[in-house]
Amino acid sequence: MNQPERSPAAASNPYADGCAWIDGALVPIAEARIPILDTGFTRSDCTYDVVAVWHGRFFRLEDHLERFERSWRRMRFEPPLDRDGIRDVLHDCVRASGLDDAYVEMIVTRGVPVAGERDPRRFANRFYAFAIPYVWLLRPEQQDAGIAMVIARDTVRIDPRAVDPTVKNFHWGDLVAGLFEAYDRAAQNVVLLNSAGEVTEGPGFNIFAVCAGTLWTPASGVLQGITRRTVIELADRAGIPTRVEMFGVERLQAADELFITSTAGGVMPVTRLDDEPVGNGHPGPLTRTLRQAYWDAHGAPRWSSSVT
Amino acid sequence: MNQPERSPAAASNPYADGCAWIDGALVPIAEARIPILDTGFTRSDCTYDVVAVWHGRFFRLEDHLERFERSWRRMRFEPPLDRDGIRDVLHDCVRASGLDDAYVEMIVTRGVPVAGERDPRRFANRFYAFAIPYVWLLRPEQQDAGIAMVIARDTVRIDPRAVDPTVKNFHWGDLVAGLFEAYDRAAQNVVLLNSAGEVTEGPGFNIFAVCAGTLWTPASGVLQGITRRTVIELADRAGIPTRVEMFGVERLQAADELFITSTAGGVMPVTRLDDEPVGNGHPGPLTRTLRQAYWDAHGAPRWSSSVT
Repeated sequence: MNQPERSPAAASNPYADGCAWIDGALVPIAEARIPILDTGFTRSDCTYDVVAVWHGRFFRLEDHLERFERSWRRMRFEPPLDRDGIRDVLHDCVRASGLDDAYVEMIVTRGVPVAGERDPRRFANRFYAFAIPYVWLLRPEQQDAGIAMVIARDTVRIDPRAVDPTVKNFHWGDLVAGLFEAYDRAAQNVVLLNSAGEVTEGPGFNIFAVCAGTLWTPASGVLQGITRRTVIELADRAGIPTRVEMFGVERLQAADELFITSTAGGVMPVTRLDDEPVGNGHPGPLTRTLRQAYWDAHGAPRWSSSVT
Repeated sequence: MNQPERSPAAASNPYADGCAWIDGALVPIAEARIPILDTGFTRSDCTYDVVAVWHGRFFRLEDHLERFERSWRRMRFEPPLDRDGIRDVLHDCVRASGLDDAYVEMIVTRGVPVAGERDPRRFANRFYAFAIPYVWLLRPEQQDAGIAMVIARDTVRIDPRAVDPTVKNFHWGDLVAGLFEAYDRAAQNVVLLNSAGEVTEGPGFNIFAVCAGTLWTPASGVLQGITRRTVIELADRAGIPTRVEMFGVERLQAADELFITSTAGGVMPVTRLDDEPVGNGHPGPLTRTLRQAYWDAHGAPRWSSSVT
């Protein structure tokens, strides 16, 4: 859980702040741009995935590539690169950047309309990727203390019947509105409910509650996070039972421990909820165990592979 | 209702296919790009508006600028230009393009995260604009015949409690999914229902039903379209009553006439619904009257102003 590191060569490397792949070329992240007419922007008609590199190794790269492919197939995209080509580009971006710890994003968009054409079936789909320094949804020192979260009151999560949250997407309007609600209520983050009042997810993360030694996490209407899956697998190995099902706010309010999970930061303790302490107000023992196990797993050959 | 026209100088003008304003400079549309890290893209954290230029005149420019300002204020954006500055940029883009008939878009985004920063309150908001040849949601010859529409079965409109549709936004995932459903059912367009089964809107348009001489259009959960407002005002002047309220599919199914409205195409007849003819299967008299009145209004000083 160290801070991101840069290679000694960073100072002279034009890609040291990040490297993107745009139209077949590697470019420094500060110069990486997409066409303003790409409907990935103007209709948010795109899907993406994010994989972490930690200490020079991708974490669960094949799982991310598999989810990404499932997502773009659901969107009926035909990206210009296949899975092998995409994997190569991700390695290229990280290697060029020289970053040991990186946040690596891959995106497929519907693309730019041909002049006068409204039919999205006729657009040439586009692929983009970039590697930037590892992004912490919560910085390590925030994770040590735990953060204050609110349950959104003014905003509900987008209905899965409107936009499928299992196809990772940029429809963050509800999540960002929730984040502003958290700031207005002097908290740092937010979890959203669906229209039935069930707990879903927050901006960029899944949520877990620990109740009497059992982990609970929502079953549907959420991203099927790779970090979420990793936590469930690590818990299973440690003999901690998990229930993947829907639940209401009362389970969060009564929880002994709460934590959130994301490729951008791992397993992150929540120690206040709606201005009340969670448990004793400090990161709990199961949260700490799983957080440690998560980072320990990053060196294991089963789940990680060297950047080449 | 002619096809878009180009000035005679178009052949030698690098902006003839469109002109964008990016970071203070005018650029040909084909070269207009935005940073890949702009959260206007990666979180669809932005708002926009579109105004038409027809035969060298903006249509209801001040109404569009007013709605746009209301939208970016609701998003808590602070764009780098005020309303006068934005108006100037729009004129600049159209004038440089030489287009007589143009689709003119203005966008404010949350902007690019400062390195390592997740708090969107700290990002510098960005402004973009562009003018491109007038976009027809349906081409004039399609409008003459009317189009086939379906009522979406597999996708519901995003709930206004999740993302406010009156703040014009790029959260089109539901609308594009609906469009693919239309194509799969051999239709050209789609209208979506909310989760209560009420009619809302479709990809880029509001909808009107004509029932026994009265216009009906949904009251809420939709964009408050300027073309929608224009139609209501023109109908009022022509003595046609309008009811702005929520209704179910049965009103669409029983309608004598149906039409859709958009800045990208005006008043557009729908002549088939779910594979059944609407009325007699041809554009109806009220639709034709309002379509003509809409285009006639484009020269009126009350609503239009010259590009300068």
